[in-house]
Amino acid sequence: MERILMAHGSGGRLSHELITSLFQKYLGNSFLNQMNDATILPGQEQLAITTDSFVVSPLFFRGGNIGRLAVCGTVNDLAVSGAAPMFLSLALILEEGLPIAELEQIIQSIAETAKEANIAIVCGDTKVVERGSADKLFINTTGIGYVSRTLVNPQQIQPGDVILVTGTIGDHEIAILSEREGLEFETPVTSDCAPLNGLIDCFFQTGVKCMRDPTRGGVATTLNELAQQGGVCMLLDEEALPILPGVKGACDMLGLDPLYLANEGKALVIVKPEAAETILHKMHSHPLGQGAAQIGVVMEGKPGLVLLKTPLGGKRILGMLEGEHLPRIC
Amino acid sequence: MERILMAHGSGGRLSHELITSLFQKYLGNSFLNQMNDATILPGQEQLAITTDSFVVSPLFFRGGNIGRLAVCGTVNDLAVSGAAPMFLSLALILEEGLPIAELEQIIQSIAETAKEANIAIVCGDTKVVERGSADKLFINTTGIGYVSRTLVNPQQIQPGDVILVTGTIGDHEIAILSEREGLEFETPVTSDCAPLNGLIDCFFQTGVKCMRDPTRGGVATTLNELAQQGGVCMLLDEEALPILPGVKGACDMLGLDPLYLANEGKALVIVKPEAAETILHKMHSHPLGQGAAQIGVVMEGKPGLVLLKTPLGGKRILGMLEGEHLPRIC
Repeated sequence: MERILMAHGSGGRLSHELITSLFQKYLGNSFLNQMNDATILPGQEQLAITTDSFVVSPLFFRGGNIGRLAVCGTVNDLAVSGAAPMFLSLALILEEGLPIAELEQIIQSIAETAKEANIAIVCGDTKVVERGSADKLFINTTGIGYVSRTLVNPQQIQPGDVILVTGTIGDHEIAILSEREGLEFETPVTSDCAPLNGLIDCFFQTGVKCMRDPTRGGVATTLNELAQQGGVCMLLDEEALPILPGVKGACDMLGLDPLYLANEGKALVIVKPEAAETILHKMHSHPLGQGAAQIGVVMEGKPGLVLLKTPLGGKRILGMLEGEHLPRIC
Repeated sequence: MERILMAHGSGGRLSHELITSLFQKYLGNSFLNQMNDATILPGQEQLAITTDSFVVSPLFFRGGNIGRLAVCGTVNDLAVSGAAPMFLSLALILEEGLPIAELEQIIQSIAETAKEANIAIVCGDTKVVERGSADKLFINTTGIGYVSRTLVNPQQIQPGDVILVTGTIGDHEIAILSEREGLEFETPVTSDCAPLNGLIDCFFQTGVKCMRDPTRGGVATTLNELAQQGGVCMLLDEEALPILPGVKGACDMLGLDPLYLANEGKALVIVKPEAAETILHKMHSHPLGQGAAQIGVVMEGKPGLVLLKTPLGGKRILGMLEGEHLPRIC
């Protein structure tokens, strides 16, 4: 490969190849090699840090905008790492000619979402590039959290553990897709874009072993990462997947697999079997966890393998996302 | 103003207006309102945090590239805030089609510069946008440092204090300009792009009251910020400004004022008069401080006013950068 392809940003197989062949090769160290949503830093207080750039197109969509997304995405990476989100940086790259009214609406939304997530915006930066050198507005947020609870990570996952998801899957990507392509579905789909730290505070307890938010690459790619990092095999139950009718309809029509669609307000949570019911019950008690469901189990088997049990009882291998579903969903 | 102009990213007057009219209006809090190069965070260990996006064009220039710049820019914002740079995040926005060999060269440079600056890259993110939606490569770095020494800030500046600069001014912007416009000067100018934490470790002592790196907007704009924040008046001596012959020549030819040109490896240091000589001596002992000079003094007078004493003995007011010298220098 000689040039960057769109699929290098998909969160799927090519993204992982770029990370190992280039970034880990030159930059690898004990921090980066943690390869989790947030990196845990040493110190008197343990800190978690994560960074994300947002290039979603269009800037505004049903259920949110690039500003809300930029806060939620980073807050969620901290929250699923078991950290309490505390501080957020905010860096904007603006294209010359961007209407200031649009920017103002996005900044307002950032302020509201930061309040909702109880995170303080502590520093910022603004760059402007000539018309045509960027597409309207890109945002980077970097988040710092305090690690206040037991560490969660893929190494703790064991056969017998149960895989939960905090709600319906695929909503965000279908919302972006319909906005971008001007598709009208009978039941319009709204992005699930939301800060998850409140929900996680609500259900977190002993028995939670690992959490991760299935954004780019979707549930299938994220579970592949976890299965590889934890050296375990996983079996999902297709019939147990919570999917909104609007998302199901769009997927059927467009030939998309909801397991590979991005989510921006959902977490995959791997728990001890004996704790599963209580945790699921707690999830259901929170507004953002009402669609929570048990979707699979961790099994003995080939490390890194993720299987899907179909309604007819067959099993198929779920790999990482190949190529790219849809660019610029976050 | 209804739309974003290039000058909103200049670091000059319009940048400041955007910050107060939009960002402080919606996002203002006790952290953001510190308005320094890095924000000091509370906690058992005091942390400093800063964020910067880099959109420099071209990606490679004499003396560095966007990768080296992205490490130095953030390291320097921490260092001039009196913090020891510790952790760096690295987020890339790539344009589809970017040659991977160029990316590799930049990543190598990031690794080398991080080593030189003794900072660990701890987390990262990669996004790819379609050809034409970004210009090759944008980088965001966010840096975390430990505040290990006496706090420095503009509020400590008093009449009688002395203004030092750690070396020649304007080198970076002239290097970018000549690269971009294909200008050939008799003495080619090299960017001063360098991490300053080693130099600051070398000269820092009691009597250092405030430090800031004069990047976008140059020495004149940065001193205007400090004079405003410190509520003091400053007088610069034009004859004392250290300027390389190549930079002087380019400025004369192109009608540019070196006081408004960006630097990427220089610090302005305001010190107690009795400590000035010792500090200047220590600066001269370090490879990055050999051109250090005393360039002015803090005076009684109108708060926020910066004056320049010309060789003929006249005085003129130095305001903030108006409009924009040159876009995308960092």
